[in-house]
Amino acid sequence: MSVKIRSTNMLPAKVNIVEVGARDGLQNETAVTLVDKIRLINLLSNCGLKHIEAGSFVSPKWVPQMADSDQVFAGITQKPDVVYSALTPNLAGLERALESGVKQIAVFGSASEAFSQKNINCSIAESLSRFEPVIELAKQHNIPVRGYLSCTMVCPYEGEMKPEQTTSVANTLFDMGCYEISLGDTVGKATPNRVIAMLDSLLTQLPKDALAVHFHDTYGQALANIYQALLMGINTIDSAVAGLGGCPYAKGASGNVATEDVLYLCEQLGIETGVDLNIINEAGWQICHALGKRPSSKVALALGDPHSL
Amino acid sequence: MSVKIRSTNMLPAKVNIVEVGARDGLQNETAVTLVDKIRLINLLSNCGLKHIEAGSFVSPKWVPQMADSDQVFAGITQKPDVVYSALTPNLAGLERALESGVKQIAVFGSASEAFSQKNINCSIAESLSRFEPVIELAKQHNIPVRGYLSCTMVCPYEGEMKPEQTTSVANTLFDMGCYEISLGDTVGKATPNRVIAMLDSLLTQLPKDALAVHFHDTYGQALANIYQALLMGINTIDSAVAGLGGCPYAKGASGNVATEDVLYLCEQLGIETGVDLNIINEAGWQICHALGKRPSSKVALALGDPHSL
Repeated sequence: MSVKIRSTNMLPAKVNIVEVGARDGLQNETAVTLVDKIRLINLLSNCGLKHIEAGSFVSPKWVPQMADSDQVFAGITQKPDVVYSALTPNLAGLERALESGVKQIAVFGSASEAFSQKNINCSIAESLSRFEPVIELAKQHNIPVRGYLSCTMVCPYEGEMKPEQTTSVANTLFDMGCYEISLGDTVGKATPNRVIAMLDSLLTQLPKDALAVHFHDTYGQALANIYQALLMGINTIDSAVAGLGGCPYAKGASGNVATEDVLYLCEQLGIETGVDLNIINEAGWQICHALGKRPSSKVALALGDPHSL
Repeated sequence: MSVKIRSTNMLPAKVNIVEVGARDGLQNETAVTLVDKIRLINLLSNCGLKHIEAGSFVSPKWVPQMADSDQVFAGITQKPDVVYSALTPNLAGLERALESGVKQIAVFGSASEAFSQKNINCSIAESLSRFEPVIELAKQHNIPVRGYLSCTMVCPYEGEMKPEQTTSVANTLFDMGCYEISLGDTVGKATPNRVIAMLDSLLTQLPKDALAVHFHDTYGQALANIYQALLMGINTIDSAVAGLGGCPYAKGASGNVATEDVLYLCEQLGIETGVDLNIINEAGWQICHALGKRPSSKVALALGDPHSL
């Protein structure tokens, strides 16, 4: 058999869900109103989530859906025990985020040289050097920085990624000061064997508490991959309420793995999430009504819309 | 940690896919024409599938979608290396199947006493005794009999099922002469820990080659469950092209796990399927056009409709 499966017996007792629907989700949907965004984030704040990515300080020319992130941060009711983070790809973005009182930020790089060139028009090395002043300024303001890495297992241009390559870039981001690296399966093509190969390599270099997984469900593989990551002790999972997001590479296909589906898996596995699935389900249906679509979450479809039951 | 995960390193080199879309799928959809059914099954015959469930000889009063199964069997082009099976719940059904030249049949029981009572109006023991003459007559005609078991892990009425209960009923079906027991997650609520518990129990009694898994994706857990079953050496998987089927308990929710998604998982894990994903995808889009719906398969949505690309 070509696939070597390690002995795995490390399901965590507890997981942290990083809710990315309001950012990574909504940036790939048709724009919703500021009021809808604020309502979504306030409802998410009542679910028990401890980390909500609430916006992105990028050029509105590139991502018009995120143009009102400063108003989002001004409008939401922030709970003291919840982290509301924002993506800030450069110094200008961080400065806007600081003006909005953002207390945690994220930078976004790629493990793939080809994806970096085509997606952000620079090499991986150049992108990392651009993060340096961002991370430096964040440190001065005691702002923790999360690092996203795209194409950690499969790249739409390079195909299968070498685990050592992903490990090397993740290591650099960690050494630069990112407290956590979110390992993205950007095109949703990874399967559990690739999760094993990547984590086997990464876990020789980085502590598991510094790693998060970020799966897209484009090929329906996200929960199988998350299950494999959990078996290897990973305890931070990115997900988006209602599976918000779509896929820029395949019209009508799925985007981020749905928070509801992740919660169902974890709860049934006996893993503590601290998140109320019923409130998440309500938030998912509400934002989907605003978007004029049905949730991409299978659990949401099975539970139904609480306001029409 | 409450969940005990066994050391698992047994991915099979090869899996058998039992394609149930034309029966378990279409019986839970709005009726399609005879021509559409025959076209679907003929296209499935060209995919490399070795077992296609093509119909059901039940009362048309209960399942009107299957009323034309005799015409289906008369109309399809049967390939010599493909098994075309039919569900025959009783002697009358088997007799009709024999008249149609069916060469393999299946019976359908439940691991749950409550589900058996509510779904087929008799106890498990009574249902098994009804299968006896069916299996006996099938034997006389050298017709292999497959046994379906519903609610093997979770029952909509009883909740979590005891693995010993499922094992006991599966064992009886095997002893009665079923060559294979298809273990159904009827409501789609199982998660990998329940797969482990069930298979740990079953594999003490029955050979793994006599077991198949049959997951519904209502809560999005099917591929994680199939991955766990594969890790335990299970090598026969039921699935339905385009995820046909729906869920009678939740309007708009998913039914059978999609063949396309299972194939993608297995192929990427390095497991041989013998099935051509692109032809399956074409068959899925074609039957979905006839049904006036989009495929429930995420892989199908990612690959797109080959006739509109």
